[in-house]
Amino acid sequence: MSHNSFGHLFRVTTWGESHGPAIGCVVDGCPPGIRLDAADIQVWLDKRRPGAGKFVTQRQEPDAVRILSGVFEDDAARERFGGQVTTGTPLSLLIENVDQRSRDYSDIARAFRPGHADYAYFAKYGVRDYRGGGRQSARETASRVAAGAVARKIMPGVTIRGALVQIGPHRVDRARWDWAETLKNPFWSPDPEMVPVWEAHLEQVRKAGSSTGAVVEVEATGVPPGWGAPVYGKLDAELASALMSINAAKGVEIGAGFAAAELSGEENADEMRAGNDGPLFLSNKAGGVLGGISTGQAVVARVAFKPTSSILTPRRSIDEDGREIELRTKGRHDPCVGIRAVPVVEAMTACVLADAFLRHRAQTGGAAHRPGLESAPDFSDASATLG
Amino acid sequence: MSHNSFGHLFRVTTWGESHGPAIGCVVDGCPPGIRLDAADIQVWLDKRRPGAGKFVTQRQEPDAVRILSGVFEDDAARERFGGQVTTGTPLSLLIENVDQRSRDYSDIARAFRPGHADYAYFAKYGVRDYRGGGRQSARETASRVAAGAVARKIMPGVTIRGALVQIGPHRVDRARWDWAETLKNPFWSPDPEMVPVWEAHLEQVRKAGSSTGAVVEVEATGVPPGWGAPVYGKLDAELASALMSINAAKGVEIGAGFAAAELSGEENADEMRAGNDGPLFLSNKAGGVLGGISTGQAVVARVAFKPTSSILTPRRSIDEDGREIELRTKGRHDPCVGIRAVPVVEAMTACVLADAFLRHRAQTGGAAHRPGLESAPDFSDASATLG
Amino acid sequence: MSHNSFGHLFRVTTWGESHGPAIGCVVDGCPPGIRLDAADIQVWLDKRRPGAGKFVTQRQEPDAVRILSGVFEDDAARERFGGQVTTGTPLSLLIENVDQRSRDYSDIARAFRPGHADYAYFAKYGVRDYRGGGRQSARETASRVAAGAVARKIMPGVTIRGALVQIGPHRVDRARWDWAETLKNPFWSPDPEMVPVWEAHLEQVRKAGSSTGAVVEVEATGVPPGWGAPVYGKLDAELASALMSINAAKGVEIGAGFAAAELSGEENADEMRAGNDGPLFLSNKAGGVLGGISTGQAVVARVAFKPTSSILTPRRSIDEDGREIELRTKGRHDPCVGIRAVPVVEAMTACVLADAFLRHRAQTGGAAHRPGLESAPDFSDASATLG
Amino acid sequence: MSHNSFGHLFRVTTWGESHGPAIGCVVDGCPPGIRLDAADIQVWLDKRRPGAGKFVTQRQEPDAVRILSGVFEDDAARERFGGQVTTGTPLSLLIENVDQRSRDYSDIARAFRPGHADYAYFAKYGVRDYRGGGRQSARETASRVAAGAVARKIMPGVTIRGALVQIGPHRVDRARWDWAETLKNPFWSPDPEMVPVWEAHLEQVRKAGSSTGAVVEVEATGVPPGWGAPVYGKLDAELASALMSINAAKGVEIGAGFAAAELSGEENADEMRAGNDGPLFLSNKAGGVLGGISTGQAVVARVAFKPTSSILTPRRSIDEDGREIELRTKGRHDPCVGIRAVPVVEAMTACVLADAFLRHRAQTGGAAHRPGLESAPDFSDASATLG
Repeated sequence: MSHNSFGHLFRVTTWGESHGPAIGCVVDGCPPGIRLDAADIQVWLDKRRPGAGKFVTQRQEPDAVRILSGVFEDDAARERFGGQVTTGTPLSLLIENVDQRSRDYSDIARAFRPGHADYAYFAKYGVRDYRGGGRQSARETASRVAAGAVARKIMPGVTIRGALVQIGPHRVDRARWDWAETLKNPFWSPDPEMVPVWEAHLEQVRKAGSSTGAVVEVEATGVPPGWGAPVYGKLDAELASALMSINAAKGVEIGAGFAAAELSGEENADEMRAGNDGPLFLSNKAGGVLGGISTGQAVVARVAFKPTSSILTPRRSIDEDGREIELRTKGRHDPCVGIRAVPVVEAMTACVLADAFLRHRAQTGGAAHRPGLESAPDFSDASATLG
Repeated sequence: MSHNSFGHLFRVTTWGESHGPAIGCVVDGCPPGIRLDAADIQVWLDKRRPGAGKFVTQRQEPDAVRILSGVFEDDAARERFGGQVTTGTPLSLLIENVDQRSRDYSDIARAFRPGHADYAYFAKYGVRDYRGGGRQSARETASRVAAGAVARKIMPGVTIRGALVQIGPHRVDRARWDWAETLKNPFWSPDPEMVPVWEAHLEQVRKAGSSTGAVVEVEATGVPPGWGAPVYGKLDAELASALMSINAAKGVEIGAGFAAAELSGEENADEMRAGNDGPLFLSNKAGGVLGGISTGQAVVARVAFKPTSSILTPRRSIDEDGREIELRTKGRHDPCVGIRAVPVVEAMTACVLADAFLRHRAQTGGAAHRPGLESAPDFSDASATLG
Repeated sequence: MSHNSFGHLFRVTTWGESHGPAIGCVVDGCPPGIRLDAADIQVWLDKRRPGAGKFVTQRQEPDAVRILSGVFEDDAARERFGGQVTTGTPLSLLIENVDQRSRDYSDIARAFRPGHADYAYFAKYGVRDYRGGGRQSARETASRVAAGAVARKIMPGVTIRGALVQIGPHRVDRARWDWAETLKNPFWSPDPEMVPVWEAHLEQVRKAGSSTGAVVEVEATGVPPGWGAPVYGKLDAELASALMSINAAKGVEIGAGFAAAELSGEENADEMRAGNDGPLFLSNKAGGVLGGISTGQAVVARVAFKPTSSILTPRRSIDEDGREIELRTKGRHDPCVGIRAVPVVEAMTACVLADAFLRHRAQTGGAAHRPGLESAPDFSDASATLG
Repeated sequence: MSHNSFGHLFRVTTWGESHGPAIGCVVDGCPPGIRLDAADIQVWLDKRRPGAGKFVTQRQEPDAVRILSGVFEDDAARERFGGQVTTGTPLSLLIENVDQRSRDYSDIARAFRPGHADYAYFAKYGVRDYRGGGRQSARETASRVAAGAVARKIMPGVTIRGALVQIGPHRVDRARWDWAETLKNPFWSPDPEMVPVWEAHLEQVRKAGSSTGAVVEVEATGVPPGWGAPVYGKLDAELASALMSINAAKGVEIGAGFAAAELSGEENADEMRAGNDGPLFLSNKAGGVLGGISTGQAVVARVAFKPTSSILTPRRSIDEDGREIELRTKGRHDPCVGIRAVPVVEAMTACVLADAFLRHRAQTGGAAHRPGLESAPDFSDASATLG
């Protein structure tokens, strides 16, 4: 319920501002006995970390995560699990803010930057930490990536991968899709031929002091059928909420998404043939979710990110005193925030799935029913007797 | 947390299957002293009700709502409020199922219809009520519309309107947008010239035994700045969850949405000039939400609906025994479920906003801070002293 | 979160007032495939039903429950499960109000009865349904009993029994405790020799137009070790909340309870010897819960109920206009509400345990670790790989 | 929902183990614009801190709290608020563990100490941090006290005070109750004549290597009528849950509590006379709560604490291998944990009230209705119109 928590059973609470001493999160509900070292989280944070190229913000942060609670290691744990494990109590993850460049913020301290949440925060709270974006800073997403790293650990067999599929008007060619390529270029492009196109586009945007939007696609394979729930606990509704909560996100779609509006019923409904453990689907327009419940196909979602509003062109605005002003953003900024969003989209998808996994196990015991088998749970002895 | 509840403070729990004795919902958290008669709810249910035209399902339901709890009327209430009012206790709203046509369901009792949630329910639960779609039936959305009617009552000055903006490949021309038109045609089209185009398209689809998708747009005006919250309680994230939870929804976008990916920072960031109560925005690419918090502009969202999977063309599938089958859907169905979704999209938007209103009032007292005014709440006497 | 819902995964939402058309509840999160007929619920409602003796209110209600949703029966279900089963979707349970005796409420319509919630409701809501107590009526507890009946069905091997252990100053002699006796007298007394004492006491109280308090004890056996959770999701904290939420409850204790304050550490700590599946405890001062987690011993709690404030003696009060008045309660009332509370205490205990069962299964898979055995879940293949 | 979070709108999530690097909490939902320095929290932590006397554990912890997020200070904030203020974003509070005395824990690493949660944790999680009690350590309560300090700041006019009213068999004489005395002795005794009695009792207990239980009473004055909610969001039910969640708590009562079971209806129902703002109650058997809603009287609760199970006498138990053992507890321990619980009981009460305050303001706007005045909120313009 709280404004800074996400998930129900795998529950993440994040805190921290861009220029405070640290940011972090508490992950509650993690199953016990999961091998977890800081390195398991650091590898994903390093993937998200800015400073890796000229098209992302030049802020230099080591983003070194510390696990302050919820894990334990002794000789017995080393013997049984191979090292440090989760204990089932909350994990507190902390990342210090190192590179809060101390500059003069007087130019924006009372100004509302167009396209930023400055005015919305002011109207709601009356006071705000404007340094480096405060709580609205993309820096908060490091906490999401850390939580996502834990989420990945608890789902056996689930693999979550993200890719950038569009920057500005330039979209990847799906005929050339190769997941392996996403690790070979700084854009997570699955289409190698798109890399030089995006480079040229971003160079032009950067020189103009402008910015550009993007679309990220994420795919989760290995999700068994049965995760999610009808009506309001739908897996796709939870994904929509999680992905739309990422900074700068303006749209979310599942499977065919908005394109489904143009399809016929014949084109859209994925046909099935018999497989060993359930249906073999002949297509995946559904994006792995039907009626809010996973089908066993790959879960597929896309997120649209707007261009950052931090641009060099002067823009008209007002300030806290109601005066009209002109404003241009200085400081370190990404020309395309969508690029750095890829690991964040992956992490939020991991958190949603981990939560769905635990919720499903709670209500049903966790095993999927399979066509051709009699697998209903047997509660025949469960009924209590009077008195 | 529960799978069939939505909202935090304005909390809606729905229940019921297509062919059970009734459907309904419980609305908890409604403020007291709100005038509320069954007629206030019925007017919106009538708007949603099928049977109104040849392009929606022919199921004939009066959908008469009863308020079973949470309201009170006596002489004093009539004098003070003008009639029956809410008491602050939960509203139980019940709609009987009248037209559950008793047909033979043996053809689908063990079959998984492609594009439906049949297999997903089976895999999760091992047992399902297949009659008329059971819990997955669009009939459940009547409960949402009833709850939305209550939500509208508690937000002074907020108006929520929906329109259909696309059926299949045919989109309205925004230059011809006229909200008044939406009440004059069976499609809630804001563009009168689109009506005959959609009619022809749907006639063709219906004759082919096929179906088609659609896109619905919703706009809420009168939402003051400050509703919503950062990070995970974002107004747009809550809207995304609510709208994606509607049957057949596959995509949600806010403001410019997916189109924002193609915009430049200059095009996307809405400039401001000084108004009386805050900024006058010169555009609304943000769709009324920045940083997850309302800005005072119209809140604008769009939802993509897939074509219904109930089509006459035989489709390949499997059954509960794992056998391969061919299936074609009989019975009453909409060629375009998106049409009937318009009042549901409105209702879910109303529920999200009512919840955000109450949550905002909880944390801040409810008043928005205004540029040029000193309006911070005064808690100077609030600090407790030791002992 | 909502004010009228209880539980997290086994989640109960109740609604309804004493003199509305009906009361009821929605039970969400129930596992699928559980055999459930209305009769399974009715048996417990009949146990709670007033009108059974001269020491409980004379209101005559059949309290016939209807299951409006969430269950299904067809030939396959009959064959596999033996009849109607839960489907995993929300159960809507409805009980009509039949005997709302239409009397004149003008004497209390604007008066605040001492010891009742009249003034508190007025101060909070400004409007209230005063007929028969409205939402504060003990009638609401029928919904709890109905939900508890469902809760019992989902916990294999758990037995929940309640007893009255004190009326006014008269306490049962624990040396004579016999659970079988509780079903043989109208007071659920486990001590047969206390029955005539209580009868005489209540007769005296009734004749004086007065009322008396009571203490109920509940015991749940068959609860495996491991249910509950540390810090805020503690099993005893959840029990305390559930039991204190029952009308007229003023105190809750677990195990030795308040008496533990007078014990020494030696007396209080339950020693253990080795059993087959874990420890054999040599005493149960803990009441089956340590650190918020069940130990496998019987879970034991007690609840104190105040005497009802509906008495014939005139009492000083004020009314909605702020005028001083004298008031005496007319109508049907229990001299000792604690008697009818026994099945309600059992039901709330069942709901708490069912919720704990599902939450435990979510986080850990559900099996308890046993001393001397290596039973940690194996997630060795669970770690996701980069990319 | 999560196991380590408490509250709904004023939401506290704690983390940390006794021997990890730090403990702490995240407080979400705090209103903005509240003056808050670390010193405002430190003053309450110092009150709780062990090491202050020979009857509490000798662990020496400075318990210096750091506020890592959610506050802001600049020239404007200093001018408007007088210093650092809350921003409405989550507060992260961190307390380092300094005095984790590194001793050998091999004697209890695999043993289940009687009366401790060792076995329950093992059965649930299969792995546990046994050093210093791990997550079950009373050290966790420092986080509660820190959160409670914030809660106090947001409730204008509310004062929360705790006292010890019983140690072992020795109870204070209420005729001598003087709140000022609670600050003058190391036991928070409101009865000065009880101090030497308790001292002698504790000295005897300490010498015997034993321990003793206690009862804490808490009183909140200045709580306006209307906080809390019927049925499951009852103020007393929330208090019961919060107080029972404190380590070693075994019972909670409100107002007359268990003694109410022995009262007559005449004795128990608090009569009213007319006051300026509502009723003047002539007694407070209700403990300030009726029907789950505050009445404007002092909210009064009591909590029973068991004697700590860490005693020098050898006790029978088993270990993780299922072997029977004898165990005696070494290390630093309180002979009476109830003493240090006083500030924790105060803090949990503050958190419950802060949450109730925000929830009440959400649903009703926050103002109490007063007898003799017409103060219903006016929503006459709130109803939305069709279309």
